[in-house]
Amino acid sequence: MDISGNWFLETVCPDLATMLQVRQVLYSGKTAYQKVEVLESDLFGRSLILDGKTQSTEKDEHIYHEGLVHPAMLRHPDPHSVFIGGGGEGATLREVLAHKSVTNVSMVDLDGEVVELCRKFLPQHHQGSFDDPRVKLLHEDARGYLQNCEETFDVMVMDLVDPLEAGTAYLLYTEEFYQIVKSKLNPGGIIVTQSGAVGLLNYQECFTTIFNTLSSIFKHTASAQAHVPAFQTLWSFTLASDSPLTFPDEAGIDGVLKERVAKELKYYDGESHRSMFALPKFLRQGIQEEKRINRDDSPVFML
Amino acid sequence: MDISGNWFLETVCPDLATMLQVRQVLYSGKTAYQKVEVLESDLFGRSLILDGKTQSTEKDEHIYHEGLVHPAMLRHPDPHSVFIGGGGEGATLREVLAHKSVTNVSMVDLDGEVVELCRKFLPQHHQGSFDDPRVKLLHEDARGYLQNCEETFDVMVMDLVDPLEAGTAYLLYTEEFYQIVKSKLNPGGIIVTQSGAVGLLNYQECFTTIFNTLSSIFKHTASAQAHVPAFQTLWSFTLASDSPLTFPDEAGIDGVLKERVAKELKYYDGESHRSMFALPKFLRQGIQEEKRINRDDSPVFML
Amino acid sequence: MDISGNWFLETVCPDLATMLQVRQVLYSGKTAYQKVEVLESDLFGRSLILDGKTQSTEKDEHIYHEGLVHPAMLRHPDPHSVFIGGGGEGATLREVLAHKSVTNVSMVDLDGEVVELCRKFLPQHHQGSFDDPRVKLLHEDARGYLQNCEETFDVMVMDLVDPLEAGTAYLLYTEEFYQIVKSKLNPGGIIVTQSGAVGLLNYQECFTTIFNTLSSIFKHTASAQAHVPAFQTLWSFTLASDSPLTFPDEAGIDGVLKERVAKELKYYDGESHRSMFALPKFLRQGIQEEKRINRDDSPVFML
Amino acid sequence: MDISGNWFLETVCPDLATMLQVRQVLYSGKTAYQKVEVLESDLFGRSLILDGKTQSTEKDEHIYHEGLVHPAMLRHPDPHSVFIGGGGEGATLREVLAHKSVTNVSMVDLDGEVVELCRKFLPQHHQGSFDDPRVKLLHEDARGYLQNCEETFDVMVMDLVDPLEAGTAYLLYTEEFYQIVKSKLNPGGIIVTQSGAVGLLNYQECFTTIFNTLSSIFKHTASAQAHVPAFQTLWSFTLASDSPLTFPDEAGIDGVLKERVAKELKYYDGESHRSMFALPKFLRQGIQEEKRINRDDSPVFML
Repeated sequence: MDISGNWFLETVCPDLATMLQVRQVLYSGKTAYQKVEVLESDLFGRSLILDGKTQSTEKDEHIYHEGLVHPAMLRHPDPHSVFIGGGGEGATLREVLAHKSVTNVSMVDLDGEVVELCRKFLPQHHQGSFDDPRVKLLHEDARGYLQNCEETFDVMVMDLVDPLEAGTAYLLYTEEFYQIVKSKLNPGGIIVTQSGAVGLLNYQECFTTIFNTLSSIFKHTASAQAHVPAFQTLWSFTLASDSPLTFPDEAGIDGVLKERVAKELKYYDGESHRSMFALPKFLRQGIQEEKRINRDDSPVFML
Repeated sequence: MDISGNWFLETVCPDLATMLQVRQVLYSGKTAYQKVEVLESDLFGRSLILDGKTQSTEKDEHIYHEGLVHPAMLRHPDPHSVFIGGGGEGATLREVLAHKSVTNVSMVDLDGEVVELCRKFLPQHHQGSFDDPRVKLLHEDARGYLQNCEETFDVMVMDLVDPLEAGTAYLLYTEEFYQIVKSKLNPGGIIVTQSGAVGLLNYQECFTTIFNTLSSIFKHTASAQAHVPAFQTLWSFTLASDSPLTFPDEAGIDGVLKERVAKELKYYDGESHRSMFALPKFLRQGIQEEKRINRDDSPVFML
Repeated sequence: MDISGNWFLETVCPDLATMLQVRQVLYSGKTAYQKVEVLESDLFGRSLILDGKTQSTEKDEHIYHEGLVHPAMLRHPDPHSVFIGGGGEGATLREVLAHKSVTNVSMVDLDGEVVELCRKFLPQHHQGSFDDPRVKLLHEDARGYLQNCEETFDVMVMDLVDPLEAGTAYLLYTEEFYQIVKSKLNPGGIIVTQSGAVGLLNYQECFTTIFNTLSSIFKHTASAQAHVPAFQTLWSFTLASDSPLTFPDEAGIDGVLKERVAKELKYYDGESHRSMFALPKFLRQGIQEEKRINRDDSPVFML
Repeated sequence: MDISGNWFLETVCPDLATMLQVRQVLYSGKTAYQKVEVLESDLFGRSLILDGKTQSTEKDEHIYHEGLVHPAMLRHPDPHSVFIGGGGEGATLREVLAHKSVTNVSMVDLDGEVVELCRKFLPQHHQGSFDDPRVKLLHEDARGYLQNCEETFDVMVMDLVDPLEAGTAYLLYTEEFYQIVKSKLNPGGIIVTQSGAVGLLNYQECFTTIFNTLSSIFKHTASAQAHVPAFQTLWSFTLASDSPLTFPDEAGIDGVLKERVAKELKYYDGESHRSMFALPKFLRQGIQEEKRINRDDSPVFML
């Protein structure tokens, strides 16, 4: 591989980074909240980068977005009302809307400029979802919105940037926030949040504290992981509910998807579910040993 | 993360590379067969690099080596004699020897200089395994050895470098080679081979052709995958046998390991097995669509 | 300096490369002849990249273009007709046109698409020079053009890509080509050519063979060098003529420039001339030891 | 050029870095004062790196060290006693000792551990100079030493790390320090200091303030620059004296060197002198516009 050319470098953790050969920088700028780049590479198609971190790429975003959305939707017996926190690309919205039972979605993404850029530059991500009449799209702080709204939800999907110290989202991963979430869930309701990278043995405390924080508030918690090529690591999702988080067997999952979802999924099915919901031993140990709870005044930040 | 410093860059696929901050280059040289480097990093400890490709690192080699060795060993009812092709670090050997039933291991690694370097620089990898009296260590071509030897084996573990066009190993991934392997397996015997990186959607043909080639020769074939942090991708292992490759349930796996293995494993157990042996949908589709068979005169090379 | 972000990597020589943080990739594509990129960086402004090699950048192109053009123009007693080979950015043209004595310029750049891209994306380079009525712009092979044209010239400026083996220009650095050049020079005429990077002690043979080849055909040859920041190395220019290549002293150079050039130069003046035309010892030694002559069938390529 | 391998990355300025393929990391550690690495590359041989900055390399250190030492030595009519501040590699010492007139050298380098590492790993740099009986080697703060010592000197050579904010040397570039230096110079004495990188148009204030600070204290100041391949930029040296800093012509310089220096120099001679002491226009302008003076309480730091 020739070294000459345009590369996007991204920190994975202290001492580790990735290099992606890039064809075009379609957009590079700053919104009121963050640095935004839209890149195009031969390998991953169009990527959204926020504050230097790849959020998703055209070619593999289905792994992340299907893995985030469908287990929670499928576990709920009949999800009608859905909340999405973040999710600027519109791909989480797209997966939620694929569920035929869904009648209304409130999506609250702080950064309207990012959403506008995604509408313009990432059509393969949103596929027109923002125009679905079931959608209410708002640009404000998700936590403030939830505190004040009258709505309640069957499923709440937190598709957020990582809890970075310098970032906008860490107050959406705390005990105080999850208390608000709990108060907005209908009976049987489920929350799922992205819970960070877990592929490196020594860098999992962001995940384990999110898990532990949710466990302190909800009766049931379950985590899953999937390898996302563009992240070059495992990514985690954590579900929580006061109802049991048991799932059908593989054939059962395939059956429910066929019945409820109005398209063929590209990543998620019964066998992928089995792989996702079996955590590597070191993550199970990490969860067991974790005692910390994210609080507004003492969160665990992603490095 | 500061850019200044010593970095090891490694190609993952065309357009993608990784960067690892390195503290020391403990060894850098060439053997008769390949370029060898032993690096030390804060993140991964000591790494063995052959021809620019990370083979394994001190901090996470257990994922690769346990994932390669134990499923095949565990599936066999009572493995006594084991063949290892490659495996220079001595860590595959270490895992094989942990099985109390094992009475003799023939390990054939072409490159005696690499093995010597591993003995010297990677003590945490081999942990003295080369000195175990059950071990016969040879430095010659594994294929030639198998063609001429009188031995037969219960389990054969192919811990090889990838089938690179310029490399030494691609003739150990072909139909002709697997015919030799089959002739050296005892009844009920199992072969397992590392079968390359599978984390990138568009780069899996090396895996699918190895799978398909083994499937054309053995009655049963099964593949597994695990995320290996130092590779920053999913890695695959493929088992083949004329006996069924069914496994106990999770508790059953944990039970057999406890009974047969003389140490606590760090990665592999029933739940990890479940995750490993559930392939992502795109790999299952890749296998289904693959029609090619690796032959000595027309192999599929790793890029 | 943070590692995350968009970087343009460029090979300087085997084992050495540069990394430039890039804000935008304004253009990336291929013409009939070469790969073209127009980048924008905070440090260097807009850059033209051909086949992965930086040709010039907005912020420092004056060093290269003034250093290439003015010594030859100034040495000629009264340059009217000028030939430019290559020079797609239009900046060499701009410097030539600044000489009030110039009445006609024939610029022959093989790649019309590159010139169009420069007109569009690099206005600070050409500054409208292509529209000057003294200019005749052609897109064909400079060597073929010279062989067939009726024109003769006072000064000929070869502003070419390096003589790369896979490139389009190596036949514009050979004995056969310089014979054609010589036949097109008016009495007292001068040719100047860019003659490659000379900043690395072990990589100067491209320069020394160009020098030696010109010396075998013209009575007088003189080389100069200047550090070009965006190249992160010294760049060389070589003049040749059958008239002596002696220059006025520093004050004399400043006087001639003031008289003849219709603008203030940013880099070149008497003192810069003194620095440019004093070669480091290793280059002088390299020239002395060089015996090779570039011929069409045995050129020395830039690595 | 293949991207895989070991690379040393070094920041040149914000937005620009260099990459050098490295064969071995011979040493990597920390002293009481700084991070130290000794690297070996095919291109530059052995390099000394302090706090991530290349200090000098085996293959091209002669450019820097000859360029630093000889102009000042040569300008002095008969240098006997010399002071060296810094200079851990021993190469500045080597060049000073080559002057037959020199009878005693006091070299004060703060970091004795670095000097020990250089003695061990950089024999081609010092070439045994530390063992010359004319040398007195001390490891303490050069400023403190000069304040308290009884000695005076004909030539004082400041071969220091850059004035980094986090570094050890910025108090050796200030007005207060140069007052001490002045008090230690014999009549006709000269100081020369390295004065930083000057190859980037926008990053020269470190150089211009050093120049301006010296100019405020000494009657005569002169700067020179040379391209140092391993730095991939121009490097500057600044001389100051109360005696005029005029030099012989080129033949005169070559004559004095032949007479006084006990070896053939590899870089510096009359013609190189001419190139070095002609500054590019932007540096002359930078000097003219600079009004700041480095003071202990308000120094200009190197970025």
